[in-house]
Amino acid sequence: MNRSPVSRRNFLKAAGVAGAGLTVGACRNASALPAEATRAAMPPTPTPEPTPEPTLEPTPTLEPTAEPVAMAESEAVPTATPAPAPQGNAWEEMDRMHEEGVNIFLDGIDPTNGFWGTPLEYREEDGVKIFEVTCQEVDWEVEPGNTVAAMAYNGIVPGPEIRVTEGDTVRILVHNEMSQSTGVHWHGVIVPNNMDGVPYFTQPPIRPGETFVYEFTTRNAGSHMYHSHHNALEQVSRGLLGAFIIEPADKTNEPVVDADYVLIMNDVGIGLTLNGKSFPYTQPIMAKLGEKFRIRYMNEGVMIHPMHLHGLEQLVITKDGWPLPQPYYCDTVNVAPGERFDVIVEAHTPGAWAFHCHILSHAESAHGMFGMVTAVIVEE
Amino acid sequence: MNRSPVSRRNFLKAAGVAGAGLTVGACRNASALPAEATRAAMPPTPTPEPTPEPTLEPTPTLEPTAEPVAMAESEAVPTATPAPAPQGNAWEEMDRMHEEGVNIFLDGIDPTNGFWGTPLEYREEDGVKIFEVTCQEVDWEVEPGNTVAAMAYNGIVPGPEIRVTEGDTVRILVHNEMSQSTGVHWHGVIVPNNMDGVPYFTQPPIRPGETFVYEFTTRNAGSHMYHSHHNALEQVSRGLLGAFIIEPADKTNEPVVDADYVLIMNDVGIGLTLNGKSFPYTQPIMAKLGEKFRIRYMNEGVMIHPMHLHGLEQLVITKDGWPLPQPYYCDTVNVAPGERFDVIVEAHTPGAWAFHCHILSHAESAHGMFGMVTAVIVEE
Amino acid sequence: MNRSPVSRRNFLKAAGVAGAGLTVGACRNASALPAEATRAAMPPTPTPEPTPEPTLEPTPTLEPTAEPVAMAESEAVPTATPAPAPQGNAWEEMDRMHEEGVNIFLDGIDPTNGFWGTPLEYREEDGVKIFEVTCQEVDWEVEPGNTVAAMAYNGIVPGPEIRVTEGDTVRILVHNEMSQSTGVHWHGVIVPNNMDGVPYFTQPPIRPGETFVYEFTTRNAGSHMYHSHHNALEQVSRGLLGAFIIEPADKTNEPVVDADYVLIMNDVGIGLTLNGKSFPYTQPIMAKLGEKFRIRYMNEGVMIHPMHLHGLEQLVITKDGWPLPQPYYCDTVNVAPGERFDVIVEAHTPGAWAFHCHILSHAESAHGMFGMVTAVIVEE
Repeated sequence: MNRSPVSRRNFLKAAGVAGAGLTVGACRNASALPAEATRAAMPPTPTPEPTPEPTLEPTPTLEPTAEPVAMAESEAVPTATPAPAPQGNAWEEMDRMHEEGVNIFLDGIDPTNGFWGTPLEYREEDGVKIFEVTCQEVDWEVEPGNTVAAMAYNGIVPGPEIRVTEGDTVRILVHNEMSQSTGVHWHGVIVPNNMDGVPYFTQPPIRPGETFVYEFTTRNAGSHMYHSHHNALEQVSRGLLGAFIIEPADKTNEPVVDADYVLIMNDVGIGLTLNGKSFPYTQPIMAKLGEKFRIRYMNEGVMIHPMHLHGLEQLVITKDGWPLPQPYYCDTVNVAPGERFDVIVEAHTPGAWAFHCHILSHAESAHGMFGMVTAVIVEE
Repeated sequence: MNRSPVSRRNFLKAAGVAGAGLTVGACRNASALPAEATRAAMPPTPTPEPTPEPTLEPTPTLEPTAEPVAMAESEAVPTATPAPAPQGNAWEEMDRMHEEGVNIFLDGIDPTNGFWGTPLEYREEDGVKIFEVTCQEVDWEVEPGNTVAAMAYNGIVPGPEIRVTEGDTVRILVHNEMSQSTGVHWHGVIVPNNMDGVPYFTQPPIRPGETFVYEFTTRNAGSHMYHSHHNALEQVSRGLLGAFIIEPADKTNEPVVDADYVLIMNDVGIGLTLNGKSFPYTQPIMAKLGEKFRIRYMNEGVMIHPMHLHGLEQLVITKDGWPLPQPYYCDTVNVAPGERFDVIVEAHTPGAWAFHCHILSHAESAHGMFGMVTAVIVEE
Repeated sequence: MNRSPVSRRNFLKAAGVAGAGLTVGACRNASALPAEATRAAMPPTPTPEPTPEPTLEPTPTLEPTAEPVAMAESEAVPTATPAPAPQGNAWEEMDRMHEEGVNIFLDGIDPTNGFWGTPLEYREEDGVKIFEVTCQEVDWEVEPGNTVAAMAYNGIVPGPEIRVTEGDTVRILVHNEMSQSTGVHWHGVIVPNNMDGVPYFTQPPIRPGETFVYEFTTRNAGSHMYHSHHNALEQVSRGLLGAFIIEPADKTNEPVVDADYVLIMNDVGIGLTLNGKSFPYTQPIMAKLGEKFRIRYMNEGVMIHPMHLHGLEQLVITKDGWPLPQPYYCDTVNVAPGERFDVIVEAHTPGAWAFHCHILSHAESAHGMFGMVTAVIVEE
C-alpha cells in the first residue's frame, strides 16, 4: 500500500519537534512529571538536527565509562536461550546497537520502496484477467549484507500481490525458470480440482522451462495466498509465496478503511521476516490520526507468529478470508502457518507504535530489535 | 468410519478417465487454454492403464537427461532448514519420488483397512456399558519399513474409539500388560475425581500386571480423548491415546452429516502421524458430491498442527467438545496439544483435495509429501 | 489471591479421610466396583497418617522386585524425544519419583506463600496512584536446588501485580538497579506514545542507576501485563514481567466470582514455570464446592502453552483484556506469547483436579510431573 512519501525527517518536522526524535510527547508532558523523568531527548543520531542534552542525571555511582565492550558477531544469532547479561560496560554497547537499529528504521522510512507490495498488473481478454508469474532463483536481500538464495515469483519476495474481484475469471500463466519443478496452490481459493496446484494429485509438475496455465472463476472473497505445493518446505520457505486477494463483489459489508496492508510472515527459509525483510529494513504503516486501516496477516512460515501491536487495539474481522460472525478486539493476533486474519485498526493515538511478533526470540536480541518487527506511526 | 470400498482404480473409473489419473479436469478444460497448458496427463505409473504422452513441450534448453541423481537416504529426514536446491538433474529424481508417494497413496485407498477406526465393542450389564482396554508394548508400523516401539491400547494406535451417549454409565476395565505403571485420563470428560486417572492425585498407578476399573456416568457430550496420565510424555507420544466420543442425548442441535471422521495427530513419539500413520500410508476421506461430513480433530502430540484442507471450506462447530455459540468458516484449523475441534465440510466440488498440516516440515520434504498428509476425495 | 490457609493435612481432614489421601472418592465408590478396582489407597507417604494396605492384587507373574534401578540425573531433563521405557524394575523407581512429586505438592499447600501474588501497594497524591518498581538482578529459586540468575521487579518473579481501576491516573517510578539499561512496556494498556516504554522509539533507555517515571490515565479495562521492552528476550524471559490489571469502572458486566487468580507462564529464561515456580513447588487453586473463580492467563514466554484443566470446564470471557462478544466453553486454553485470556470456572465437582500445560514435555518426564503443572482443589 503506497501512501504519500514521508521520510523520518518529514515525520519529525510534521510533529513539530525536529531533533527531539519520537520522544516529543515525553518532552511535552515532562513538566508534569518529577525532575528525574525529564530526560526525554533521543540520544545523538547521524542526522544534522540539533539534539538537546539529556537532562535526566544518571546515578553517579553507575556513571558509564567510555570503553564499550564489543560483542562477537556470533552472538547476534537469536537463540532460545537468552544470552548472559553483559559484563562490565557491555550494556553501553548494547544500547548503542539498539539505538542504531531504531535510527536505521526511522531514517529509512520510504513508502515508495515496495515493502507493502503493489498489485500485479494484468491484461484483459474476453473478460478474463490474465496474469503472468515467473518462478526464478534469485538473490534476495533480506537486509544489507544478508542476501539469501531465494526462489521468487517475478523476482520479489513476497511475490506480487494478485488482487481481483469475486466473480472474476482469472488466467495465470506460470513460467518455471528454476532448476526444479514446481506447482502453484491457490491457498484458500475455491477452484476446480485440476487448478489446485498439487503435482501428481491435480496436475503434472511444472518442470524447468515449462509454463502451466491456471484458469478459474473466483467464488470466495477474502485474503488468500498463492504458493508452491511442490518440494514446498524448500520452495515456500525460500520465497515462492504471495497474497491472493479477492475483493467481494458486494462491498456492502466491507469495513470502510483509509488503507489496506498485507503482512506476510516467513521464517526458516529466508529467515525471520515480514514481507521478506528483517528489521530495521522493514517499513512502518503510516497513518493520520483518526484514520482506519486494514491489515491482512498471512503466515507462510513453519512457526506461529503472534503479532502484537502497541497502543492501538485490533478488531479481528476475518479468519482465512471468511468473515467472523462476531469480530473481537485484541492486541495480539496469533497466526499459525497457513492461517490469515484480517484486522481493522483505528489510529486513535499519535506516535510511533512498535508492532512485532511477540515470540521475543523472533524480534529482539542483545544487539537490538531484528526480524519480525515494524511499527505503526500515527501522525497528528 | 467405514464407507463402501473404493480402490484407486474404481475411483478413476467412476471419474470416467482411466489412465488420466486425477488430472481429468485439466484434460477436459485443456482446449480452452493456451497450447502450453495442455500437458495434463499423469506421468507413467505402475498401473496397467494406458497413459497418454505428455503434450506440453518442455523448453528445449532444459530437456531432462535420463540419469537422475540419487539423493542420500539421510536427506529424507525433514528438518527446519530446507534442503538445498537439487543440483544437476536431481530435480527429476525429486519429481519421481513425489510421484511415487502420491501413487502409493492413491493405489492404497482401502476404506476397510482400519485407518478411520471403529468403535470399541462393549457388553452391557445392568444398564452399564462395559469396555475392556489392554495396555501393551507393541511394534507399530507407521509405514512399511518404519516400525516403532509403541505403547498401545488393544494393540492399535490410536487406541479403539470409545463412543457412547450422554447419560450412559460406562465401566472401563484397564489391564496393564506393560512393563511400567500407567493411568488413564478421560481428557475433557467430566468425571468424579477418583475416576480422573492421575496417579497419586486421584488413584494409585496401575502397575504392571494390574487392572483398574473406571466407572462413571457421562455428562458432557462432545469429542473427547482418553490417554495415559503417567509418564505421559513417553506413554502418550508412543501411542497410549484414543478418541472418547459422547454423543448428545438430545440430537436436535446436532449437524446432520453423511459421515463422521476422527483425525488424531501425533508427533514426537511415533513420529508425525495422522491416526498413527504417515503419508502415503494414510487413508483419504471418500465423499460423494453434495455430501456433508464431520471431522473431529484431536491433537495428542506436543506441537501445534494447523490442518489445512484444499478446495472445501471447514465450518468449525465445537471447541473441546463444547458447541461454539457462533460457528465460523475457515480453511486451516490450528489445533494445539490437548485441543479438539469439530468441523463440518460440504463436498461441493469433485476431485482429490490435499489435506495436511500446514507446518510444511510436517508434510513435505525434497523426497515428496510425508507425515501429516491425507486427502478428501469427492466423487461425482 | 490469598484464601484462608489450608494445609494438605487440613484439606485431608476436611475431606474426612485423613490417611487416604486424595483417593477418598475411589474408596467410597469402591464397593460398587469389581474386586480388582478396590486398591484405592495412596502409596505410603512421609506423613504420619496411617495408610491402608493396597487391596488390588498385582498379577503374580509381574511381581515387582525390591531393587529399583536408579536413573541418572541427566535423564531428568525433558526433551522432545521421550526417554526409552524403563528396563527391569526401573518402573518402580519411576513411580516412586512420581509419587514423591505429588506428595511434595500436596504437603506444600500454603496459600500464604505468595505464589498467587498480591497487589502492589501504592500511595496517592492529588488523585494519582503512585507505584514504585525497582529492577534488580536477583537469585530466584524456581524450586529448591534450582536457583537461577533472574531479573526481577521488586525482587520477585513475576513482579508484583499492579491493579487499578479504569480511569485511574497512575504514576509508576521505575528504578533501574541492574547492570544494563531497560524500559517498561505496558503490554495491552492504551497509553500516550511517550509512556509506551520502547527505548529509542518512545523514550531513552533507563540506564543503570536511573529512574524513569511513567504516568498515564488508564482507559481500557482488562488483564494486561508489564514487562521489559529492551533486550527483551533476555530481560523478560529472566523475569522482568508482571500483571497489570485494570478493573472496569462500571462493573455491571463483570462476572461475579469468589476469587480471582493470575497465572503467568514463562519458559526459556527461568525455565518452564507458572508464576515463577516449577511443580511440585507451585500452589493449587483452593475452592469450595459451588464457588466460581476467575483465572487470568498471561503468556510471557516464547512458546505456546495450552492450559488444560481437568474435570471443570473453562468459560473463556476475554481475549487480551477485551470482552469476547460470545464467551465459549473449553477445557484447554491455548495461550500464545503476549496473549491473555480470562476464564471463569465453576467448582462443581469436588476433588484435586490436575491443571497443566498440555505440551507434555512441559509437564511430565519419566521422573514425574514438573514445570507447568498445578491443580484446582475443590473442597466439599
